[in-house]
Amino acid sequence: MLPDRGRFITFEGGEGCGKTTQVALAKAFLVALGISHLVTAEPGGTVLGETIRRMILHEADLNLSSESELLLFSAARAQHVRQVIMPNLQAGRWVLCDRFCDATIAYQGYGRGLKLDLIYRLNRFASLDLEPDLTILFDIPVETGLNRARMKTASFTGHPEGDLIEGEDWDFHRRVRDGYLELAQREPERFRVIDGMKDIETIHFQVCACLELLR
Amino acid sequence: MLPDRGRFITFEGGEGCGKTTQVALAKAFLVALGISHLVTAEPGGTVLGETIRRMILHEADLNLSSESELLLFSAARAQHVRQVIMPNLQAGRWVLCDRFCDATIAYQGYGRGLKLDLIYRLNRFASLDLEPDLTILFDIPVETGLNRARMKTASFTGHPEGDLIEGEDWDFHRRVRDGYLELAQREPERFRVIDGMKDIETIHFQVCACLELLR
Repeated sequence: MLPDRGRFITFEGGEGCGKTTQVALAKAFLVALGISHLVTAEPGGTVLGETIRRMILHEADLNLSSESELLLFSAARAQHVRQVIMPNLQAGRWVLCDRFCDATIAYQGYGRGLKLDLIYRLNRFASLDLEPDLTILFDIPVETGLNRARMKTASFTGHPEGDLIEGEDWDFHRRVRDGYLELAQREPERFRVIDGMKDIETIHFQVCACLELLR
Repeated sequence: MLPDRGRFITFEGGEGCGKTTQVALAKAFLVALGISHLVTAEPGGTVLGETIRRMILHEADLNLSSESELLLFSAARAQHVRQVIMPNLQAGRWVLCDRFCDATIAYQGYGRGLKLDLIYRLNRFASLDLEPDLTILFDIPVETGLNRARMKTASFTGHPEGDLIEGEDWDFHRRVRDGYLELAQREPERFRVIDGMKDIETIHFQVCACLELLR
């Protein structure tokens, strides 16, 4: 880690794992510490990313193939890294990012079954080889997480099965969870796995402890 | 070529080379011959493709990076091949496609300077390894083609510099032209290079002669 560059922290996990709540709390913690930072999410963070998010999650009529989905996520990431993440890190700001390259490996690789070596190559290409300083993985049983996530999505879209990714079957989501855990096992220095079944405050304290170590 | 599969013919060339006119005439020729066929174009041919075409050619506010542009073209192609091109070829129809994988090599590789090996890999992934039975390249000097193309675009958008790709500088378009010619030289069996400066009927007769050979 260069001394002047901000820290890059990614938050990962399956549907309904609680990461979005924890990102918001982590932000409040950085505010309290007076650390200049930016909170962002993938796909998203740019005009292109938001368009792609809407297409992938909500436009069933597109009938997207797995390959198109992978390439769209990668296009959103390429834009996000160049336009938002890199300039902020270079300006010394910490960047908290809700999902990043690991999500593509877990969802499109383990979940959809696309070839991992191509996904790794696309990740490096799209991210300019940027690696998170820390990745916090919130692990939670698939059934609990999906029920949470679908209820939340249904409350504002009216679709009880959630968005198009939440609507995938349980086996898909089990493969995603296993994939994440395998990634964490392979890179124990970068990953911190947190039990997403604990209560919000307990998890938040664990997140704060991780962030403290990066100062 | 399997006997039952339709022929796959791609039309390539720089801006203003006349290929869109020639695709329309080639279609009329196939109609006259009673050959069942489909005419399509990239990026396009699907809802996703049309959205991506609009973003890449006309939405300057997106400030697309070269990498995002490449990935978007590839996403459009993955969808186009699976949803449109393959099913039609398998149904025995000939498919005439205005731009395909070679365009990505010429524009994003030679033009933008992105690494060719990654582009080749993305092309194979997006196209399911589909290769055209014939690729007709319309070659024309950059200045002539660009003037034609920009005038045409200006007539319906009001922008004298044309769309976002036509608006690139002459050196970019020269690299694209050289790239196309290099590709044609490397695969003389698949490519037929036609001088785009000849008059429309002469070119059309040459195209018809190529198509005749595929029956």
